[in-house]
Amino acid sequence: MPLAKPIRQARNAKPDFFKECNRMAKYVYTFGAGKAEGGTKMRDLLGGKGADLAEMSSLGIPVPPGFTITTEVCTGYYENDKNYPADLEAQVDAALAATEKILGKRFGDAKNPLLFSVRSGARVSMPGMMDTVLNLGLNDETVRGLIEVTGSARLGWDSYRRFIEMFADVVRGVDRNLFEHVLQEAKDAKGVKLDTDLDAADLERLVGRYKEIYRRELGEDFAQDPKKQLWDSIGAVFGSWETPRAVTYRRLNGIPNDWGTAVNVQTMVFGNMGDDSATGVAFTRDPATGAHDYFYGEFLVNAQGEDVVAGIRTPQQISLPGSREWAEGNGVDETKRKARYPSLEEIMPVIYAELEGTRKKLEEHYRDMQDVEFTIERGRLWMLQTRRGKRTAAAAVKIAVDMVKQKLIDKEEAIMRVEPARLDDLLHPVFDPEAKQRATTVAKGLPASPGAATGQVVFTADDAEAWAGERKKVILVRLETSPEDIHGMNAAVGILTARGGMTSHAAVVARGMGKCCVAGCGDISVDYAKKCFTASGKTLKEGDWLSLDGSTGEVIQGQVATRDPELTGDFGEFMVWADELRTLGVRTNADTPKDSRVALAFGAEGIGLTRTEHMFFDPERILAMQEMILADDEKGRKAALDKLLPFQREDFIGIFTAMDGLPVTIRTLDPPLHEFLPHTESDQRDLAKAAGVPLEKIRARVTELHETNPMLGLRGCRLGIAYPEITAMQARAIFEAACECKKNGINARPEVMIPLTSSREELADQKRVVVATAEEVFSEKGIRVDYLVGTMIELPRAALTAEEVAREAQFFSFGTNDLTQTTFGLSRDDAGTFLPMYVAKGILPHDPFQVLDQEGVGILVDWATKMGRKARPDLKVGICGEHGGETRSVKFCHRVGLNYVSCSPYRVPIARLAAAQAAVEDKRK
Amino acid sequence: MPLAKPIRQARNAKPDFFKECNRMAKYVYTFGAGKAEGGTKMRDLLGGKGADLAEMSSLGIPVPPGFTITTEVCTGYYENDKNYPADLEAQVDAALAATEKILGKRFGDAKNPLLFSVRSGARVSMPGMMDTVLNLGLNDETVRGLIEVTGSARLGWDSYRRFIEMFADVVRGVDRNLFEHVLQEAKDAKGVKLDTDLDAADLERLVGRYKEIYRRELGEDFAQDPKKQLWDSIGAVFGSWETPRAVTYRRLNGIPNDWGTAVNVQTMVFGNMGDDSATGVAFTRDPATGAHDYFYGEFLVNAQGEDVVAGIRTPQQISLPGSREWAEGNGVDETKRKARYPSLEEIMPVIYAELEGTRKKLEEHYRDMQDVEFTIERGRLWMLQTRRGKRTAAAAVKIAVDMVKQKLIDKEEAIMRVEPARLDDLLHPVFDPEAKQRATTVAKGLPASPGAATGQVVFTADDAEAWAGERKKVILVRLETSPEDIHGMNAAVGILTARGGMTSHAAVVARGMGKCCVAGCGDISVDYAKKCFTASGKTLKEGDWLSLDGSTGEVIQGQVATRDPELTGDFGEFMVWADELRTLGVRTNADTPKDSRVALAFGAEGIGLTRTEHMFFDPERILAMQEMILADDEKGRKAALDKLLPFQREDFIGIFTAMDGLPVTIRTLDPPLHEFLPHTESDQRDLAKAAGVPLEKIRARVTELHETNPMLGLRGCRLGIAYPEITAMQARAIFEAACECKKNGINARPEVMIPLTSSREELADQKRVVVATAEEVFSEKGIRVDYLVGTMIELPRAALTAEEVAREAQFFSFGTNDLTQTTFGLSRDDAGTFLPMYVAKGILPHDPFQVLDQEGVGILVDWATKMGRKARPDLKVGICGEHGGETRSVKFCHRVGLNYVSCSPYRVPIARLAAAQAAVEDKRK
Repeated sequence: MPLAKPIRQARNAKPDFFKECNRMAKYVYTFGAGKAEGGTKMRDLLGGKGADLAEMSSLGIPVPPGFTITTEVCTGYYENDKNYPADLEAQVDAALAATEKILGKRFGDAKNPLLFSVRSGARVSMPGMMDTVLNLGLNDETVRGLIEVTGSARLGWDSYRRFIEMFADVVRGVDRNLFEHVLQEAKDAKGVKLDTDLDAADLERLVGRYKEIYRRELGEDFAQDPKKQLWDSIGAVFGSWETPRAVTYRRLNGIPNDWGTAVNVQTMVFGNMGDDSATGVAFTRDPATGAHDYFYGEFLVNAQGEDVVAGIRTPQQISLPGSREWAEGNGVDETKRKARYPSLEEIMPVIYAELEGTRKKLEEHYRDMQDVEFTIERGRLWMLQTRRGKRTAAAAVKIAVDMVKQKLIDKEEAIMRVEPARLDDLLHPVFDPEAKQRATTVAKGLPASPGAATGQVVFTADDAEAWAGERKKVILVRLETSPEDIHGMNAAVGILTARGGMTSHAAVVARGMGKCCVAGCGDISVDYAKKCFTASGKTLKEGDWLSLDGSTGEVIQGQVATRDPELTGDFGEFMVWADELRTLGVRTNADTPKDSRVALAFGAEGIGLTRTEHMFFDPERILAMQEMILADDEKGRKAALDKLLPFQREDFIGIFTAMDGLPVTIRTLDPPLHEFLPHTESDQRDLAKAAGVPLEKIRARVTELHETNPMLGLRGCRLGIAYPEITAMQARAIFEAACECKKNGINARPEVMIPLTSSREELADQKRVVVATAEEVFSEKGIRVDYLVGTMIELPRAALTAEEVAREAQFFSFGTNDLTQTTFGLSRDDAGTFLPMYVAKGILPHDPFQVLDQEGVGILVDWATKMGRKARPDLKVGICGEHGGETRSVKFCHRVGLNYVSCSPYRVPIARLAAAQAAVEDKRK
Repeated sequence: MPLAKPIRQARNAKPDFFKECNRMAKYVYTFGAGKAEGGTKMRDLLGGKGADLAEMSSLGIPVPPGFTITTEVCTGYYENDKNYPADLEAQVDAALAATEKILGKRFGDAKNPLLFSVRSGARVSMPGMMDTVLNLGLNDETVRGLIEVTGSARLGWDSYRRFIEMFADVVRGVDRNLFEHVLQEAKDAKGVKLDTDLDAADLERLVGRYKEIYRRELGEDFAQDPKKQLWDSIGAVFGSWETPRAVTYRRLNGIPNDWGTAVNVQTMVFGNMGDDSATGVAFTRDPATGAHDYFYGEFLVNAQGEDVVAGIRTPQQISLPGSREWAEGNGVDETKRKARYPSLEEIMPVIYAELEGTRKKLEEHYRDMQDVEFTIERGRLWMLQTRRGKRTAAAAVKIAVDMVKQKLIDKEEAIMRVEPARLDDLLHPVFDPEAKQRATTVAKGLPASPGAATGQVVFTADDAEAWAGERKKVILVRLETSPEDIHGMNAAVGILTARGGMTSHAAVVARGMGKCCVAGCGDISVDYAKKCFTASGKTLKEGDWLSLDGSTGEVIQGQVATRDPELTGDFGEFMVWADELRTLGVRTNADTPKDSRVALAFGAEGIGLTRTEHMFFDPERILAMQEMILADDEKGRKAALDKLLPFQREDFIGIFTAMDGLPVTIRTLDPPLHEFLPHTESDQRDLAKAAGVPLEKIRARVTELHETNPMLGLRGCRLGIAYPEITAMQARAIFEAACECKKNGINARPEVMIPLTSSREELADQKRVVVATAEEVFSEKGIRVDYLVGTMIELPRAALTAEEVAREAQFFSFGTNDLTQTTFGLSRDDAGTFLPMYVAKGILPHDPFQVLDQEGVGILVDWATKMGRKARPDLKVGICGEHGGETRSVKFCHRVGLNYVSCSPYRVPIARLAAAQAAVEDKRK
């Protein structure tokens, strides 16, 4: 083992770490035999797996004994030039001794060897991300002891073969395929297909050949000393924390690099000791739907755990009803099912009952759906792991609602159980049933992760990423996926695999990503070399269109139209609870009556942003807009604006009518004028003809309006200040529409919002125009309508001078898109060249255009809110940037005391839930 | 008079104003006969002129009695729909009565009429900006009383004529030229040149014709009621506060619109009652040089005050030495001088002595150079005005230094007496003497405002503005200037007038602007119609090059080379005092050893900003830079960078050597890479050939590097993070240069500055590269050099997260140019389309790129300084934006507690003085 170096003398160690070490010199926690030194509450220190193993052990659930090396050791290991604390070795030795005592076996004992698994275990689950070594402790001597004790030469040699392969791969970095190739050769030579068709002698020969590969690749013999095996493996687990795929996973999932992983050293139990042995994975409720009418899980007889996860053999179902449903879904008749895929309930009813009891115990204890791994060794059940089960959004909602009804949790806890962003999964369109009826289903696989996806076929993760980079939607098609494919899965809109079950890598990861996935689709035949697959006699090549229904498992040729989802039942009930709890308002960004109605259906309480300029791009209107821009003087501009007025008025009548009684925030013209002029020669010619002006004039105006940095140019309120007649026209359209609505019994509540303000004076200038126009219209119509005038806060200076600005503004709405651009000095249009690099290098924790930068931009939001309210205590404050529908950002808005967030219609439920969670978090504090 | 409306009932009145009114219901303050109700301390309320008239009266200086209507009335007038407070009329009547009592005359008395002047008087002098009415009270009856009392029919009719013209022009808006035309006709008819050649009968006839013009133009008879004349004139003065030219002047001079003007109603005295009468203007010290060896001033016998100011007649000098010097300078021999231009000292020695006594009294009282107006009426001296005299920068410095030596003021006060920006006048280049010797002087005028200017001739203020808008340097040539020419004078680099004295409009305004001016140059003959002038037989047309020496009065044909000014004597002494007082450091922005040396000579204490990219634009280097940008990989980039290394090293050796022992802040590469690539087809071809790469590749790279908003793109530290090898090369050049210097006994103190940081992590990344490179170089050379690594704070986020950033930064330097851009969301390149409008509309008080925006950007500077020091108490904080050489901004930097400001070499003295003033202001608080 590596020389232990006193951690306190290590250079560059963080002071905090030392402090922690001084306080807490215990690095190793044992568990087993109904006892444990740790427990669930020590998750940060022991990792999820270690904490839960300890917890299970304390609960009296049968757990193979072992011990956990803390995450603190991992952190310290990286901070101290990959050295361990001085007394770690002694603590491990003590834990080993304790484990040996429980089982009455000794590690390295040639007669009756104790074998270990060595696994990683971080605070949060990172499935498949880090390395595991099984059957540790085997060597040329102990393998014979194992054979003697178990009476199974096959198991002995198979275990040793697996151990050599794993150790070589995981600990020493030898290419696993070298071993797999030899294994395949052995099977081919014997004319068999399955590993299980190899006998003890075959496997013993393989061990010999594996050791040869090991020697050839590494220039040394396979390590025979069990203690060296152990320490090398511990080092490998710690080392796996920093592999590129682990780093990528953490980045994608927002897991801090300094959390570290624990190492769990646990006694091996064998699911491959014959037909009275098995290994399986189960969920206490259905992770796809949340149902708990039967026990949901899969197992393989005479197998080791990784056989299930790897998805190489098709697993059997745990419960009888589950098995029947699976058979029905896969077109397997009852006779074949009973023969080839019987349930655990049928073949091992006692074990099944014990497992069912454990399931109940765990749910009652954890009051959450659990994901468990178990092994049955010669008729004895061992629980290897329990953890919070990943689930689809629909399942998350259903489980939360059901558990409230079961009185396992209260409504507040239920609200906290669903990650708001996951609601996206429920809100995404599904296939249009009619379109789908017309479509050709070419195959059917497992409905591994719900949702509908349409994209072009690619066959490698790298291609998926590259095509997605060109803004193509892709479906990643693989025989099976592995952790190396993560970036491609992330880039794809859907994933289709030929092999693997509902707990295969592809299924678990896709659900985690909330991404549509059809797994284990044996109907398809994939040819990586030719980049195509065949199904139902049809061949689909790279680039062909494919559609996946992740909720049914259907694989459909071509593109299929989608339809908006319907939200009822559990979801509706759940959202009502969220609304009861939240204090933050939720509005929507909508520019049309249609958008407004969608948002209302999703629970929006008003419009936080209507962008009036979008209305001008309509073909009937753009010409008038262009005439306005080309006009020589105010008179010409007014004439053109007069043409736009009736259009704008109609737009607003439509929106006011849709939002009857709810506030509607309307932003005056924002984008630079050059955006409305054509830039190609031919378009300019067309405009010249249509507008009756010389081409030269259009060219000249385009040149004149050109800006070096349009983001920082003549736009926003600067336009309205330069051309007050534009603001006046828009204000007139708003107030005429509002008066018209009032006449028809509709309650229009306009809030006029001036964009890109940087000072009180700008707002005062535009407010004068708006107020004067309102008074004009009211006196013309003989009707008055209540309205507000406020401003976007989207420039740092507006935020910094908020106290002054609020003397004019009746409301603020943070435009955090632009505010992020100016605060960072970062153009969204240009940041693509370096922002991904920044996130990859850890210079930024995430893209600040996706997640509000609380440390920087957030200070401005907080300051402006406080200062604005200082000047005007009843100032209404909201946010209308993209961040208004992002969970962490919404929670921040709640904490800062905003009145509302506003987001796109489909994100309204996310914002409602995030707001409710923020309120609960507040209460709990 | 207009109906007085109770001010408290007026709508829209500001609450503050009412409060003020409640407290202070006195609107009229009398002065005269050795007493006064006001004084200098009431300048805000009485305006400068009114306060000083009251002060003089209290000092026993003979002042024609009268009264002042306060500035508060003006402010209220505009805030209350141009209505006066209710009791103003009664207060004016009382003051009239008091004035009548002092003189024993009555206003409107047909026998012995009291006449008044009505003049504006704001808090600060706004020369020629607002209107004045003289001889008020004259009508068809009182003119005869005046003739009887004075015994001078000529004076009576001349005064009445002038009054009608002024009243018609100023109060009623009739074109003055209509009257001047008739006057000219009368002179032509009589065959005379001067007004004084007209006799009483001529003038009486003119009065008749003037009244006809009045009737024709206005459709009514000339107002005969003196009280109506008075109230109309008071209204006109208040009205003149808002004329476009007054608004322009205030904008140019940063005078708030709400200060308002007072109205001074003062008894008329007549300098035109014959040869024992005169009128004049004097300065207690020479306003051009600051000399006080004789009494500097001009007068005209038998004239009214405006004759002097208007510069139509060439005035005589007050003192004999002054007169002799004037004669010498103008080539007038002693005989001619005595005959035609005798001094006041010679022709009225008693009055001269009284005036000299008054001069001393005023200087002792005000302890500052005064600008006085006086009138001698039939042998009796009356002082009409005293005010702080405007002066050239050289005079300001000399007067301040002299007054300290005379123990009139202390050093601190001396420092406060010079507006730092005015030092520019002393620092601007003068003509190269040799170049000037070769040049052809075509005329000589009065050295009205010092400095040297070379530009193209234009003849109208509008042309001056238009040409300057095209970045041309222009000399404005006029017969004489008037307030309507202000915008053209502002646009011109120099002003030449054919007429007028040292106190003419052109001279006074040019000195105020610190702009080179040659006035009263009778040698030239101007033809506006043909847009040319002749001098010494040469004709110069519009667009021809002309040079002016404002210190000698020389008018030179063509362009003349200029040379750096030498600063010694008073200036040196004065700046030493400034340095003794100031606590803020002053560095310079310099990219070359030459700039560094200039700045050192101006007193720079280090370099605050060296822009390394400027070095790359050198023709020998740009190719290597371009090769670097075109390289396919890091290896290619490194090869190109290796070529740049020796150049950069030599640059730094040069700068370190120049700044031996002083800190040198070096900024790593900042601009976007596309700035270094050619954008025209032919340049791209040249580069393709030179760099040996296909043209297509260059085009592709240019396209790839194109940015929508380059200001917010891949630049600053983002470049160094994307291409660490660039930072490494620059760091290597810096440290190799520093080591080389140390070997040669030169103390190099590099401070490496990372630009465009927005987070601690960015700085940490670049700091790692710099520190690693430094260690490499030190170990290669076996020499260590002390250095700092810090960052620009030029993005709002860097300022907001300053506490974190300071954990990595050893210094901050505010890049307020970029910080202003991002805080305002305003591109300097594009703001030209609306920023002038913003300043004109009063939406911004001034261009925030010229004067630091303390309310917005300043909050960030203040916050970042405090937060940065919180994390690192010894953090060095400076500023290196353009604002580092602007007075108000420098004072702000002092108040915020910065360690230093850094500015361009020529602005270093300005920064030193501004810093000293800030320290004094601090002490005085």
